[in-house]
Amino acid sequence: MKKVAIIMGSASDLPVVEKAIEILETYEIPHEVHVYSAHRTPVEAKAFSENARDNGFGVIIAAAGKAAHLAGAIAANTTLPVIGIPVKSSTLDGLDALLSTVQMPAGIPVATVAIDGAANAALLAAQIIAVEDKALADKLTAARKKAAEDVLKKDEELSLKYSK
Amino acid sequence: MKKVAIIMGSASDLPVVEKAIEILETYEIPHEVHVYSAHRTPVEAKAFSENARDNGFGVIIAAAGKAAHLAGAIAANTTLPVIGIPVKSSTLDGLDALLSTVQMPAGIPVATVAIDGAANAALLAAQIIAVEDKALADKLTAARKKAAEDVLKKDEELSLKYSK
Amino acid sequence: MKKVAIIMGSASDLPVVEKAIEILETYEIPHEVHVYSAHRTPVEAKAFSENARDNGFGVIIAAAGKAAHLAGAIAANTTLPVIGIPVKSSTLDGLDALLSTVQMPAGIPVATVAIDGAANAALLAAQIIAVEDKALADKLTAARKKAAEDVLKKDEELSLKYSK
Amino acid sequence: MKKVAIIMGSASDLPVVEKAIEILETYEIPHEVHVYSAHRTPVEAKAFSENARDNGFGVIIAAAGKAAHLAGAIAANTTLPVIGIPVKSSTLDGLDALLSTVQMPAGIPVATVAIDGAANAALLAAQIIAVEDKALADKLTAARKKAAEDVLKKDEELSLKYSK
Amino acid sequence: MKKVAIIMGSASDLPVVEKAIEILETYEIPHEVHVYSAHRTPVEAKAFSENARDNGFGVIIAAAGKAAHLAGAIAANTTLPVIGIPVKSSTLDGLDALLSTVQMPAGIPVATVAIDGAANAALLAAQIIAVEDKALADKLTAARKKAAEDVLKKDEELSLKYSK
Amino acid sequence: MKKVAIIMGSASDLPVVEKAIEILETYEIPHEVHVYSAHRTPVEAKAFSENARDNGFGVIIAAAGKAAHLAGAIAANTTLPVIGIPVKSSTLDGLDALLSTVQMPAGIPVATVAIDGAANAALLAAQIIAVEDKALADKLTAARKKAAEDVLKKDEELSLKYSK
Amino acid sequence: MKKVAIIMGSASDLPVVEKAIEILETYEIPHEVHVYSAHRTPVEAKAFSENARDNGFGVIIAAAGKAAHLAGAIAANTTLPVIGIPVKSSTLDGLDALLSTVQMPAGIPVATVAIDGAANAALLAAQIIAVEDKALADKLTAARKKAAEDVLKKDEELSLKYSK
Amino acid sequence: MKKVAIIMGSASDLPVVEKAIEILETYEIPHEVHVYSAHRTPVEAKAFSENARDNGFGVIIAAAGKAAHLAGAIAANTTLPVIGIPVKSSTLDGLDALLSTVQMPAGIPVATVAIDGAANAALLAAQIIAVEDKALADKLTAARKKAAEDVLKKDEELSLKYSK
Repeated sequence: MKKVAIIMGSASDLPVVEKAIEILETYEIPHEVHVYSAHRTPVEAKAFSENARDNGFGVIIAAAGKAAHLAGAIAANTTLPVIGIPVKSSTLDGLDALLSTVQMPAGIPVATVAIDGAANAALLAAQIIAVEDKALADKLTAARKKAAEDVLKKDEELSLKYSK
Repeated sequence: MKKVAIIMGSASDLPVVEKAIEILETYEIPHEVHVYSAHRTPVEAKAFSENARDNGFGVIIAAAGKAAHLAGAIAANTTLPVIGIPVKSSTLDGLDALLSTVQMPAGIPVATVAIDGAANAALLAAQIIAVEDKALADKLTAARKKAAEDVLKKDEELSLKYSK
Repeated sequence: MKKVAIIMGSASDLPVVEKAIEILETYEIPHEVHVYSAHRTPVEAKAFSENARDNGFGVIIAAAGKAAHLAGAIAANTTLPVIGIPVKSSTLDGLDALLSTVQMPAGIPVATVAIDGAANAALLAAQIIAVEDKALADKLTAARKKAAEDVLKKDEELSLKYSK
Repeated sequence: MKKVAIIMGSASDLPVVEKAIEILETYEIPHEVHVYSAHRTPVEAKAFSENARDNGFGVIIAAAGKAAHLAGAIAANTTLPVIGIPVKSSTLDGLDALLSTVQMPAGIPVATVAIDGAANAALLAAQIIAVEDKALADKLTAARKKAAEDVLKKDEELSLKYSK
Repeated sequence: MKKVAIIMGSASDLPVVEKAIEILETYEIPHEVHVYSAHRTPVEAKAFSENARDNGFGVIIAAAGKAAHLAGAIAANTTLPVIGIPVKSSTLDGLDALLSTVQMPAGIPVATVAIDGAANAALLAAQIIAVEDKALADKLTAARKKAAEDVLKKDEELSLKYSK
Repeated sequence: MKKVAIIMGSASDLPVVEKAIEILETYEIPHEVHVYSAHRTPVEAKAFSENARDNGFGVIIAAAGKAAHLAGAIAANTTLPVIGIPVKSSTLDGLDALLSTVQMPAGIPVATVAIDGAANAALLAAQIIAVEDKALADKLTAARKKAAEDVLKKDEELSLKYSK
Repeated sequence: MKKVAIIMGSASDLPVVEKAIEILETYEIPHEVHVYSAHRTPVEAKAFSENARDNGFGVIIAAAGKAAHLAGAIAANTTLPVIGIPVKSSTLDGLDALLSTVQMPAGIPVATVAIDGAANAALLAAQIIAVEDKALADKLTAARKKAAEDVLKKDEELSLKYSK
Repeated sequence: MKKVAIIMGSASDLPVVEKAIEILETYEIPHEVHVYSAHRTPVEAKAFSENARDNGFGVIIAAAGKAAHLAGAIAANTTLPVIGIPVKSSTLDGLDALLSTVQMPAGIPVATVAIDGAANAALLAAQIIAVEDKALADKLTAARKKAAEDVLKKDEELSLKYSK
């Protein structure tokens, strides 16, 4: 199976990124986790993304806050799908990271998920790998059913308690 | 090759979406174009997305404006990767469509591109298919080189003219 | 009397929604409370809203956060009035939910109230039912008088204490 | 049948409001159109809304721009459902009118539609009246079907032309 | 001396408004404090503002949050200068109150100060009264000097400690 | 009668400011118009405002765009009431000028009107002067009545044409 | 004299950037103009900035729109001062470019000017060079005087025409 | 070596500004720290900036919140490079200070860094001085290497722990 890379711009993004790691583990998708900054380690970020396809990666997830250039900087050096997680920092409630990640110019796409949306980043990576992996696709479908059942269980409980 | 679906919420989104169609044609990626509204034709939107994997699709692109629910509504009914294009309409400069598309709750990811970013939506779809398609990946890499050369040609021209 | 449905997109919306439930109880308006997610249980959300009129409902209130599609998804499947409560979540201070709820395309209205405005959602539902229910209208008018008196009592108290 | 009032804060709002008038005519819902400003004619705005229920109105639609107080000012003087249309003016792209209309304090709801969303305001008014009017409800359902068919016709046309 | 009125839309605005009261006390400007809601007590708000000039008021300060109509509603009923304080509430960081207060249509001005800017509202009221009151103007000028001295004292202290 | 000063930060603000000049002429309020930039002519801006009270001014209106410091810079040098007009420029729709004008720190108030709200700036200046000028107050009240009549005339016209 | 580099992310940014070129010419500051994209030509952008100091540059100006990473990408590869010009594009009125340029993480500063603020970018570059260049500093001071005189000439003209 | 001035608009900005002071100390750049308010001590702010070049300063850093005029007011009185730090205050998450600082009109540039971005302000000042100071430039480059190593150490640690 193709591997998924999770790159965070700073070790301080780990609490957000952890949800993505967990989900990849749950789906037993092989993954590598890295800390590469677009600005402080541009050489390593570039080297990693240039070689990612040859190194067996299928998707790269990049998480960064503020003027979040990481996902774009990685996308500039690979034609693998790159998923961007805008990370909320201490000002502007994540809007800066969202716009810096999603508003990419034509030619270099970044698949952006919600602010702090690490769970969806991992699920999207899984879905991309599942395009050609029936077994993984089935697992994803099963998880959706499970999620629906959880909602409906809550529905039953709250409906009973609050309807009059 | 897996097909790509392009779904727009309204025929009026065509001018934005056309760039995506062109790019898929350029890369000779088989595609179907549809007009399905999350709100006016929820049944057809659901039916299409539920059956998309079985019908040979690998990626679905969805374009919509305002309270842009289309990409999310499609993503709710498939585990294929769904790419959302927020379309700018007459008020709020596309911010409404962007937030409605990208801020998806955990469990149902939408790979969001820039406001009116149809070109990148198609390229992202191509990149997803290229994860397991070496020939397509090579074409994408070649296009990147070509784009770089175009920039450098412009650089030469403007540098000569304006440097002093 | 027609019933009012309160649907929340996730059980975690309950603390916001509780104020709406309380108000419907105060006015003795029959109500059903449900947890249906536009994205995780689209089938149940659709089924509920399609049958709501036949099942004796007069108004549906839908509460959801982030890319809040719930109210729109319900409105797409019924011609009953649908009231949307945008719920504030951990980023963007509720602006995402507000725009996702209120900026509906022509044809499918959602009657949107303030961010976290559950009390007003319930009052609006009551007002809608009261259009043809004189007794309920009188209760609503009485409550307005009571609210005015509360303000004026506060006015007396603060005016006395702070005017000089 | 209960009447619908359409009140605009200034005659300059007419181009936006006209779509609402048209829709009410289409559905043969009796309506009165007024120009009352919350700020320039507060007396008349108040008098109209205080007496609206007794004068046979079931719903009031209020359209205003900028610091759009009209819908709130009317809602303060009636317990009829009041629908607010935030009107875009020359600055801030309608955000000022949207927030001024939708962010009502608890106790006085305004059912807010999209910026310049006059069509939906009229449809929402129709839906409110249709809660107790089966014939009107059927007309609204029929229009939904018609709208779906229009979308599907466009789908057929564009699908044929652009799918490859 | 003309009196200053301070009106808050809800008793919960008192913590913000208190700074304004203090400042009026400091300058020994006679003032009345009231709680009148534009929406819950429109009659009293109107009555107060219509009669304010005759009752010896020279300026009215109005503080309200969310869709803050209070200052505008008061301004609609008097030609006295009305100062609006937009109050921050639990969502949108005060932007809703700011736009609802400041974006008044031509004809009915509201002199808007910063979000939660009660101190400046009181000072502005004092400045307005001081236009024709030399003694008060002198006090205001003295306070400016005092404020400058306070800054310069801090400057001395921090400059000494941190310059190197 | 006290004079009103209108200061614009750049001659390019004249089209916005002209409405203020017109209104002061209508009310026969003596006025001086100046172009002083907070940044390009700080000396003159300071000199003017320091001496304004002694030179017979009662109110200063300041209009500026972008990082609009003019009103604040003037307010820093006088205790006369200063009215700020945020002027919309080519980006950000006037939001930059609005926040730069209204969000003044405690101690130095600026009475801010709507973006491009020159008419209201002049009316507010008139209202401030009218605090101690009964004749002017009466003129302002008369203008309000006239404005109300204009609205009601429009009401009659549109009501007749569009009510059915 | 140290040279100034002006780099634009796309040749389409030229109309904005031209004002910067003009100003550098006026001050006879040697300059090189380039088109390098952070995303399409990351190698060249990096190479240029890494070698800029050795190649005689003192300041680099970078102009880009949307998710404007160019200034940050250059700043990551040099310790020369880098000035960022956020360029307004077809959506969001330049806010995306502003936040992407200014919100840089600690360690890699970008000196950001206003949206489309190319004139100020060039002046800032000149000011930086003038820190150690008395002659250039004198020219900048002279230009300020000239600008002040232009304002005062306009002041005289408009004051005469509009004061009454 | 030229000195760097750090000016804060209020002593309450010290917690933000401290990071800048620390960095200047680390690089042994001589600096003066001051508290001058654009509004409360305009005279001192002006005097300081007018004389800054003659007093041996090379760069001025100015930090202020809300309608942050300080950097602009200083820039208006010197042709030294002025760096603006927008400081987040209790409302609007720093957006007001950012726009008030960065959106300067043509002619008077302010080199703006991120909201609360004091570290980068000091680094930018150091970079400006380093344009003509090889030793300082080398120190800055060394710090970049150190920062990269810190990131890579974190990378090693997290990669080992989380990759699977």
